[in-house]
Amino acid sequence: MAGKEIGRTGIRPEWIDYNGHLRDAYYAVILSDVTDGFMDAIGIDAAYRAVTHNTLYTLEMHLHYLLEVKETDEVRTDMRVIAHDKKRIHASFEMFVARHATPVCTAEAMLLHVHQGETVGSAPFPPEVMAKLAEWQQISDALPATEPGSRAMGLRSR
Amino acid sequence: MAGKEIGRTGIRPEWIDYNGHLRDAYYAVILSDVTDGFMDAIGIDAAYRAVTHNTLYTLEMHLHYLLEVKETDEVRTDMRVIAHDKKRIHASFEMFVARHATPVCTAEAMLLHVHQGETVGSAPFPPEVMAKLAEWQQISDALPATEPGSRAMGLRSR
Repeated sequence: MAGKEIGRTGIRPEWIDYNGHLRDAYYAVILSDVTDGFMDAIGIDAAYRAVTHNTLYTLEMHLHYLLEVKETDEVRTDMRVIAHDKKRIHASFEMFVARHATPVCTAEAMLLHVHQGETVGSAPFPPEVMAKLAEWQQISDALPATEPGSRAMGLRSR
Repeated sequence: MAGKEIGRTGIRPEWIDYNGHLRDAYYAVILSDVTDGFMDAIGIDAAYRAVTHNTLYTLEMHLHYLLEVKETDEVRTDMRVIAHDKKRIHASFEMFVARHATPVCTAEAMLLHVHQGETVGSAPFPPEVMAKLAEWQQISDALPATEPGSRAMGLRSR
């Protein structure tokens, strides 16, 4: 069960490392790039950012590497809003390739709505964005949880 | 209190996003790149990988974004081995820039030693690598914990 598709991308040759697979950090690059599509979808797009000087900052990101991705793969990313409040979005992601039925990566991010003025400070979402987030939340609430989810890392946990 | 320095890097212009700061995913790119220096230091270098077909895979990565990094910054990364067993390394990272006394980012990763044969499977570290890991562990054990550490994400946690 997946969230909403937010992007598809091929794998650039320079993203492959000496292990012959997608380097760990480039899963994060893919997530970050496709999250721009989510921002457009909820109304925090380039025009909104230019007018309001409001944007999203990432507070935390957590990735589980589940399967190797090769240069010939195309990666589809699905995203959900697990939770949100007046200024934060707790999102989860699942990345898929056609070769595998299960995700190659699951991830979570905590995003904060901020105003970039003389200083940077958190700011409440406008009502239009809150309405969009409520729509995304409703989709997520109807799905079983993305697994594995974020957790404290430790050798005992495996 | 920091771990061992494993790398320094400038910020490439293409790593800066529309928010005017280092895009979240490129903190992970920096961590991944400098971790290659750690692999060299513990003997999992290119020669070892070529001869044994053994290498490290990342199982999990967790990043806390604490302060913005600008294009003019140079990022120093310190690393520690928080824990290890016969085939896994639980590492933590702190990233610093000269402008700030406190880290701009803390992160943790779980790394697995694998053999890339016809299939990929976990493999025990050789004694020489275990000896190096014991040295890194000793340094880490003498330091207070890196904060914030990895955890289950949630809106209630802030």
